[in-house]
Amino acid sequence: MKLTLVIIIRYINMRHQYICFFWDSLNIITFLTDFGLKGGYVAQMKGVALSITDARLIDITHDITPHNVREGAFILRTTVPYFPVGTIHVAVVDPGVGTDRKGIIITTKTQILIGPDNGLLLPAARVLGDFTVYEIINKNYILGRVSNTFHGRDIFASVAAHIAKGIPFDKIGKQSTNFVELDLGQGKITNKTAVGKINYIDRFGNLITNINGIKLLEFLNFNEKITVLTRDKKREALFVQSYGFVNKGELLVTVGSSNLLEISINQGNAAQELGINLDEEVKLIYI
Amino acid sequence: MKLTLVIIIRYINMRHQYICFFWDSLNIITFLTDFGLKGGYVAQMKGVALSITDARLIDITHDITPHNVREGAFILRTTVPYFPVGTIHVAVVDPGVGTDRKGIIITTKTQILIGPDNGLLLPAARVLGDFTVYEIINKNYILGRVSNTFHGRDIFASVAAHIAKGIPFDKIGKQSTNFVELDLGQGKITNKTAVGKINYIDRFGNLITNINGIKLLEFLNFNEKITVLTRDKKREALFVQSYGFVNKGELLVTVGSSNLLEISINQGNAAQELGINLDEEVKLIYI
Amino acid sequence: MKLTLVIIIRYINMRHQYICFFWDSLNIITFLTDFGLKGGYVAQMKGVALSITDARLIDITHDITPHNVREGAFILRTTVPYFPVGTIHVAVVDPGVGTDRKGIIITTKTQILIGPDNGLLLPAARVLGDFTVYEIINKNYILGRVSNTFHGRDIFASVAAHIAKGIPFDKIGKQSTNFVELDLGQGKITNKTAVGKINYIDRFGNLITNINGIKLLEFLNFNEKITVLTRDKKREALFVQSYGFVNKGELLVTVGSSNLLEISINQGNAAQELGINLDEEVKLIYI
Repeated sequence: MKLTLVIIIRYINMRHQYICFFWDSLNIITFLTDFGLKGGYVAQMKGVALSITDARLIDITHDITPHNVREGAFILRTTVPYFPVGTIHVAVVDPGVGTDRKGIIITTKTQILIGPDNGLLLPAARVLGDFTVYEIINKNYILGRVSNTFHGRDIFASVAAHIAKGIPFDKIGKQSTNFVELDLGQGKITNKTAVGKINYIDRFGNLITNINGIKLLEFLNFNEKITVLTRDKKREALFVQSYGFVNKGELLVTVGSSNLLEISINQGNAAQELGINLDEEVKLIYI
Repeated sequence: MKLTLVIIIRYINMRHQYICFFWDSLNIITFLTDFGLKGGYVAQMKGVALSITDARLIDITHDITPHNVREGAFILRTTVPYFPVGTIHVAVVDPGVGTDRKGIIITTKTQILIGPDNGLLLPAARVLGDFTVYEIINKNYILGRVSNTFHGRDIFASVAAHIAKGIPFDKIGKQSTNFVELDLGQGKITNKTAVGKINYIDRFGNLITNINGIKLLEFLNFNEKITVLTRDKKREALFVQSYGFVNKGELLVTVGSSNLLEISINQGNAAQELGINLDEEVKLIYI
Repeated sequence: MKLTLVIIIRYINMRHQYICFFWDSLNIITFLTDFGLKGGYVAQMKGVALSITDARLIDITHDITPHNVREGAFILRTTVPYFPVGTIHVAVVDPGVGTDRKGIIITTKTQILIGPDNGLLLPAARVLGDFTVYEIINKNYILGRVSNTFHGRDIFASVAAHIAKGIPFDKIGKQSTNFVELDLGQGKITNKTAVGKINYIDRFGNLITNINGIKLLEFLNFNEKITVLTRDKKREALFVQSYGFVNKGELLVTVGSSNLLEISINQGNAAQELGINLDEEVKLIYI
């Protein structure tokens, strides 16, 4: 019976977001920031949210390179598809905090995004399908005294928690068609070369590009050779299914976990070896 | 009905902490330590707590500089005000673990603090208002075999979980007026200068002082100039509402998110630029 | 009544794991990986799990040294004993991902372990008592399209969530006696010397050995001297109950929080001072 109830409520929540206060601990609020985990900023956001709602709080990451909106947008875009219907994502990489940049809510058919209007949320919104943007305007749903330096806590966490409780979007904000765009770009693939940018470098030093790995499979088979050209280096690599298909220490190209082409070294660090940074161009030649 | 029940229980919990076992998953236990996230120490504390209670577990931070009780006290003090009534905070920065330093519970009208008796909890307790200190003495509420090096797990997490379950304070400890004090100090403001210390350096290199930013507003308007004097440097800065009000790379002084004066560089790192460390003195001249 | 219900369900869950879908938010899933917290990998695992189950998600750590299966195995083994009956642990340190290495579930009388078949889970399984290994074979309980580089998300998180929902092990995998072993080794103690390896170096630079500290107490009393021999250094230390029993900056040997012998410096960094690395040998002479 409990299970049935939960399923019914979940279903209702999908359809009519404003009913979810019946069981708001089923809601999920995620957090993505560049605040780091060193101090109290992230916990202050969570404290504010928990003062309003029983929703579950999940960290995406707080280690976005400080002020790097593009990197934050990439992580958000590649992560939101794995979260369930109804999830509310709060993302804050916000060098313009306290100036006249707006705060926005983006609603999609399945999930909700909240954060500064600087493009951070846009790639994730697009991956979730049709979306509507609301500008946050109602002061009733933000903290009493709003600091000029920490809208993540005073505005975005508070708004997210109220949405988790079932406050309708149009009570919190007003619909807007005027928002900042951001495009992470898409690598170009021909039958001879693929050209793109480094969108993200992970902890292992894997270089995640903006080149569609699934599309490359139309032109190239696994176990074929690829020449990797970066700013100042030229290296041979093997196109393989996964890291362990080459020897330890060898360069490889693979289709990563977000279907993007990835340049890696098996149990090594490709970013260090190639001396390449975020947003730099890379060219792959396979004929 | 569910919602009503939750509200009633929440209300009861506020008034009579010992009733909260009816719904202990509504309770929140936070953790602040200098253990880092590299190993299993934090998870061991959580495992112990979850073996006793269904309370929600929230991390404040585990990256306090090792053994730096003052830094831990600062983060705790600036974070607890954002948590709801009934929250139980476990804080462990504990160079004296295993010696004869006591373990304490501090109760206030709204929240509860648990940790070593070394001053760590005191600034947070004072910010929460009137408080009572209990020395932890009852072995029934700590782990069977207590290690000499990890009271965070064996004593403090266990005590917190039992309090979340509704065990009254006076069954766990005995009231005490003999505890270690700690004062983070308060900067001095005149109509010409403000003198204080660096209480915290965040991930962005922002220097958070112990100078009351709200009080400075009595003497100085935004967009006026401030001379920043550190141990060996002298720099001009603008007093502004937020980071984005000066150009990228420029020094600024602002009222930070805890109402403390903050020295920053817009999208830069003020700590690196000024070569200043935690607890060093800073002088601001504005006339 | 609520409490009684919870207790009854908990009891049932312990006995008949397949009934736990009645109240699966009482289940706990932990995560241990070498993914780091910098990107979205950990959150993607959690999103997958939360799309299937309401179980509580707890991080053990994500900062295992990349590809270091032994270090991961050590942290898992020392942490699982503190978690309650029914906990499901997902551990992923997986240099062989995408090759033909198997994925396994290990069931014990109290807890469940899930991850790659590379030895990572074995020391934890042994510490939990009798165990059974299942090879994961049923594609119904893993993500639709499995990437070749991220089985933590596509297989292990998904399987863990289904187990939390009550799917029986033998529907997901088939029992197997063919799995990769891993032994962290055990230091040797005589009445004159103890010889072992460094199993783990924590954030404080404490060197945790694989030497049984409780057994050493049979041969040595606290406050006696120990000579510490490493690859290229020889130092005198005191055998004490905890760090604070020697002066700040002095070397000590103590029985750590997992009952293993630990070489430390009070409020200092023993790993730096002795220039010693993971897995190196250490010899203690006490006569």
